[in-house]
Amino acid sequence: MARIVQKFGGTSVADIERIRNVALRVKKEVDAGNEVAVIVSAMAGVTNQLVGYAREMSVLHDAREYDTIVSTGEQVTSGLLAMALQNLGINARSWLAWQLPFRTDGVHSKARIEGIETGEIVQRFEQGQVAVLAGFQGLGPDNRITTLGRGGSDTSAVALAAALNADRCDIYTDVDGVYTTNPKIVPSARKIDRITYEEMLELASQGAKVLETRSVALAMQHNVRLQVLSSFVEAPGTLVCDEDEIVEQKIVSGIAYSPEEAKVTVRHVPDRPGVAASIFGSLADAAVNVDMIVQNVTEDGNTTDMTFTIGKTDLERAQQVLEKLRDELGFKEVNADPNVAKVSVVGVGMRSQPGVAKTMFRTLSDKGINIQVISTSEIKVSVLIAAEYTELAVRALHTAYGLDGPPAG
Amino acid sequence: MARIVQKFGGTSVADIERIRNVALRVKKEVDAGNEVAVIVSAMAGVTNQLVGYAREMSVLHDAREYDTIVSTGEQVTSGLLAMALQNLGINARSWLAWQLPFRTDGVHSKARIEGIETGEIVQRFEQGQVAVLAGFQGLGPDNRITTLGRGGSDTSAVALAAALNADRCDIYTDVDGVYTTNPKIVPSARKIDRITYEEMLELASQGAKVLETRSVALAMQHNVRLQVLSSFVEAPGTLVCDEDEIVEQKIVSGIAYSPEEAKVTVRHVPDRPGVAASIFGSLADAAVNVDMIVQNVTEDGNTTDMTFTIGKTDLERAQQVLEKLRDELGFKEVNADPNVAKVSVVGVGMRSQPGVAKTMFRTLSDKGINIQVISTSEIKVSVLIAAEYTELAVRALHTAYGLDGPPAG
Repeated sequence: MARIVQKFGGTSVADIERIRNVALRVKKEVDAGNEVAVIVSAMAGVTNQLVGYAREMSVLHDAREYDTIVSTGEQVTSGLLAMALQNLGINARSWLAWQLPFRTDGVHSKARIEGIETGEIVQRFEQGQVAVLAGFQGLGPDNRITTLGRGGSDTSAVALAAALNADRCDIYTDVDGVYTTNPKIVPSARKIDRITYEEMLELASQGAKVLETRSVALAMQHNVRLQVLSSFVEAPGTLVCDEDEIVEQKIVSGIAYSPEEAKVTVRHVPDRPGVAASIFGSLADAAVNVDMIVQNVTEDGNTTDMTFTIGKTDLERAQQVLEKLRDELGFKEVNADPNVAKVSVVGVGMRSQPGVAKTMFRTLSDKGINIQVISTSEIKVSVLIAAEYTELAVRALHTAYGLDGPPAG
Repeated sequence: MARIVQKFGGTSVADIERIRNVALRVKKEVDAGNEVAVIVSAMAGVTNQLVGYAREMSVLHDAREYDTIVSTGEQVTSGLLAMALQNLGINARSWLAWQLPFRTDGVHSKARIEGIETGEIVQRFEQGQVAVLAGFQGLGPDNRITTLGRGGSDTSAVALAAALNADRCDIYTDVDGVYTTNPKIVPSARKIDRITYEEMLELASQGAKVLETRSVALAMQHNVRLQVLSSFVEAPGTLVCDEDEIVEQKIVSGIAYSPEEAKVTVRHVPDRPGVAASIFGSLADAAVNVDMIVQNVTEDGNTTDMTFTIGKTDLERAQQVLEKLRDELGFKEVNADPNVAKVSVVGVGMRSQPGVAKTMFRTLSDKGINIQVISTSEIKVSVLIAAEYTELAVRALHTAYGLDGPPAG
């Protein structure tokens, strides 16, 4: 007997028929003698509709009311799935966050989970009852409904799995696992059987959309074994787990890319202490998230060029912030380039294996792709290139690191 | 300063624009210095959609899950109206039943209100805060959401008004008040300014669809002054109140009619004690609600004919019940006629004024309308007639009792 948390996303519960299908998935775990708790998202499209109502009513709306409104989508699904399970003869009931309670802090619409009281659920496990929980929602210290932000149901599931000390947290979605890269641009991309939390985290934050970064970080922190699999295909998915559980570790596990980047260069910044702190402090104050940073000395030797990347959507705001700093700091000009992409190779194996970066640079060079910025971490090498080369670069790197499988059919 | 409960039905909050309009209605009461609590229904169509989901999932569904699902409609509206009020600079917040709590018994989907903890709302009245409550819902003893049955938001509003000892409970709807009869069939029908609880109760249970019978009964019990008015027209509505508040009481206040009746005659029933108890007891056991009852002695003197009316939708079930009784009781046959209508004249004035029934019978007779069954109460005379005469009868009676106003235009 195992204790399993299953999470089903919006497309998996998009209509009554699909919710019935989800019930069959849950039944399999029940029939196998497992204790099962299920986290559900809103039916596909519902959250967008509710968010649309709130935005139409008021651009600057009260986040507490927003949470009251948008949390209803998951509430509906939880009741419907409990019904569907009962139809199959399974003892099941829905739970809303306030009923457990599933406690969060008071930051409405972006709440953080503080603790989950699982006593009653566990007691009912012993009576064979399946718990169906509305995901994405919590109970704030103000006794009002909070929400965890978009994609929060993954986080709900991982937090519940941690609180229940579950053997596994299965995230059912519309893809059948985590791939070595996006199969849409590399047909020979392969599904990864096992991947470490660290790698998944890098892949997730580098643009792989399968799992929310936050839920992976939470899983790593609490050592929750996370499986990503498809609601629609009967096949094992990708297990995100501790390095110990992975016998044969590849040097590079996957190639990620993100077209959401913009490059900013501040030219001829006077080379004196505190300048970088001033620039990046001001950007942080304006909630502009800076990713890669490179600093070069210019020809005259007294000034530097500062290059960094930010999210495309923050570009205008960043330019405004920098213009205000120009006189104070005395730099020459700001150049912005939104037509860039970040491509990353990720793998825990590269810790013990030199030469990974070299392979990357040579591969790109062979294809005539110019590298604009480089940044590395222990398990990742990222480069910034012109956006138009993205697919070419990803395909070439996928081949170079031996990740190609047979083309998908 | 007064304390007002306002209730807005589904058509009044059908979309964002209408919810904004509702906020303006609320603002008027706030600007007048009143303490205001608002009960909202789900946006028109939403409850039907949610009920549709539940039914599609399972015909015999768990009422607790049903309540979890269908209560979300009002939850969404409560958040949206709180936002709309905040847009107008009004201090407002939404309340869900579990947050007060608004307690009911545990009969899911048809719960009865047991008590409302209004302490926090009243405290916030003092800070000028408007309370926006999701109607139709409650918190059951099982710590789960209950619902009050269709039309339950009217009941929520009256119960809240009683608990708050409010000066008035305004029910905003898509008509501008209670009419002397249905203006669709009598263009000269007039809006009634004031009507007693007893009359409203008779009119409501006799087919006038403006208010739920249950909410009127609750208002009468707790002496809540109830006003029915339009969300869309700026005009006073109809006040449902105690007899003392009505200076000039008409003999007949209104004419109601119901086409939902069927007539059943059980012929040649042996005339011995216990037969009526057996027939009506069996019907009650089968949940068939019997309305008018008439018993005649037949020509032979040893048997009676028993005639009664029931809801059309119960007719088939009633016939099955009666067939089973035939041998036991030894009656001859059962005749059923679904083509009947009940027409009622209602007015507290008839208590002190004889001749009301006579006027009714003569008016119908003059039009050549045959009366099949008669039933009376202290403030009502009802007759059963052939359905095809309904409009003719209602128009003639409306004129006969002096209720005609200038034709609507």
